Amino acid sequence: MNKLLIVGTVAFDAIETPFGKTDKILGGAATYIGLSASFFNVQSAIVSVVGDDFPQEYLDLLTARNIDISGLEVVNGGKTFFWSGRYHNDLNSRDTLDTQLNVLADFQPKVPQDYKNAEIVMLGNLHPLVQSSVLDQMETQPKLTVLDTMNFWMDCALPELMDVIKRVDVITINDEEARQLSGEYSLVKAAAKIHTMGPKYVVIKKGEHGALIFHNKEVFFAPALPLEEVFDPTGAGDTFAGGFAGYLTQSENISFENMKNAIIQGSNLASFCVEKFGTDRMLDLDKTEVVSRLQQFKSLTQFDIEL
Amino acid sequence: MNKLLIVGTVAFDAIETPFGKTDKILGGAATYIGLSASFFNVQSAIVSVVGDDFPQEYLDLLTARNIDISGLEVVNGGKTFFWSGRYHNDLNSRDTLDTQLNVLADFQPKVPQDYKNAEIVMLGNLHPLVQSSVLDQMETQPKLTVLDTMNFWMDCALPELMDVIKRVDVITINDEEARQLSGEYSLVKAAAKIHTMGPKYVVIKKGEHGALIFHNKEVFFAPALPLEEVFDPTGAGDTFAGGFAGYLTQSENISFENMKNAIIQGSNLASFCVEKFGTDRMLDLDKTEVVSRLQQFKSLTQFDIEL
Repeated sequence: MNKLLIVGTVAFDAIETPFGKTDKILGGAATYIGLSASFFNVQSAIVSVVGDDFPQEYLDLLTARNIDISGLEVVNGGKTFFWSGRYHNDLNSRDTLDTQLNVLADFQPKVPQDYKNAEIVMLGNLHPLVQSSVLDQMETQPKLTVLDTMNFWMDCALPELMDVIKRVDVITINDEEARQLSGEYSLVKAAAKIHTMGPKYVVIKKGEHGALIFHNKEVFFAPALPLEEVFDPTGAGDTFAGGFAGYLTQSENISFENMKNAIIQGSNLASFCVEKFGTDRMLDLDKTEVVSRLQQFKSLTQFDIEL
Repeated sequence: MNKLLIVGTVAFDAIETPFGKTDKILGGAATYIGLSASFFNVQSAIVSVVGDDFPQEYLDLLTARNIDISGLEVVNGGKTFFWSGRYHNDLNSRDTLDTQLNVLADFQPKVPQDYKNAEIVMLGNLHPLVQSSVLDQMETQPKLTVLDTMNFWMDCALPELMDVIKRVDVITINDEEARQLSGEYSLVKAAAKIHTMGPKYVVIKKGEHGALIFHNKEVFFAPALPLEEVFDPTGAGDTFAGGFAGYLTQSENISFENMKNAIIQGSNLASFCVEKFGTDRMLDLDKTEVVSRLQQFKSLTQFDIEL
């Protein structure tokens, strides 16, 4: 079984949507990535940090899904990273109400010895120096490195971000971030420019409008599943990335053709994530539902024109 | 060869985009629909009206593509419908600068005798009373009726619009219009509500974000082809509808499975339409290019996950 190394936040989130609001609940990029990847046959580990205010039951949720948390540091006397946000009525945009870095401020990631030879490394959204540090600690060259990031790092740590972007195979960002990073409005042009920064594969997430993966002159598109209601978009992008990385780890095939399947798997899992608050839906999801919805993705997109 | 009857405007357009502006050029929903449908093996006719200011060369462009214009009335001393608009920088929205109904104000459509038994009827965007009048004139029940409309008629002729919507098999509208017509934000819910108004098939156009077709609980999605540059979106929706209707007319198969192909054909043709001003690209397009780009749609969307 191949290994997937995940770095990213493990956090408390407080979320407001038009449908309701939560107190501090389980959140964080690495959490969503790990839960999503756990739907595949992979060995996975999370590298992250929390404070000693982080409940044991949340840690148990991760280990119950065979996620190795030996690289998840618990800082005594420290407080867990906290994010709070409010979504607008269309759920496509949100305001950040509060961000408390807490233990994340001085985070030095430590890759567990067992995972220094992981085949796939998924660098979730975090300070680019942390992402680089994880790559530095690898003892064998991973078969594939995937990086997720956001506009915040483009604004305040661009040189460090460019350094880590140069080192990865795949980058996943949203459409607005792709435009900001490249200075190009057209996503085709944006992807071409981001290729020149390093990544051979550029994944552009468009939220409810699906996701694109570009590789040289090739491009593939996965729609988001049309849903009656999106309840809470928090974690959808990370769940997408986790499905993408998890599927590639399981299938041991990193061809572009198989990345198409991986993008569909990611979109499929993300379509569940948004159905409830936070991680709720990912935690009550079973594999039968996942497969059944993949069938929906097939009927949604597959056609048969004779050429 | 099956017959396709098209009703819609034949017009002068004056267009401004970030890339330039045109004088009065050939435009109109029926023009784009007719040109698009002419890429299929169909007999087609346009029912519309122009003034005697409409150049013979434009009429010749239509007849050169085997479009029957015996139902295109030329009003002596009348002026052709004129629309002028300016697109914003993102090309997703536009302002109407001028609309002169002219001969359209008193238009009484006359379906040519030869087309009163047309298998497919494509009702392009026009006053719903004109659309209804065309249906009234049919002597045999068409196999399929397709209606395109816009928010303008929802604002100022809603009862008449609801009357004609009740009578058609397929409606094509954009996402904002679907929301306005149904009062539902979710497109899944909007489509379900529009089903109850009459149409068994609801096509929702999302511009650069592709198009959906809903049929009861089934749904299919066609992406827009990612393009380096969109030059002028004018007529893209009509070109899409023309490709949809033209392909269905040619293939003599109106199953939902074949409508999936039709949606792809429509998206494919629309992807050319936006590459130049007005009808320019549709006029210099050849069938080899059309087939070659269909292949791109296949690689863009087809995947192979074993379930």
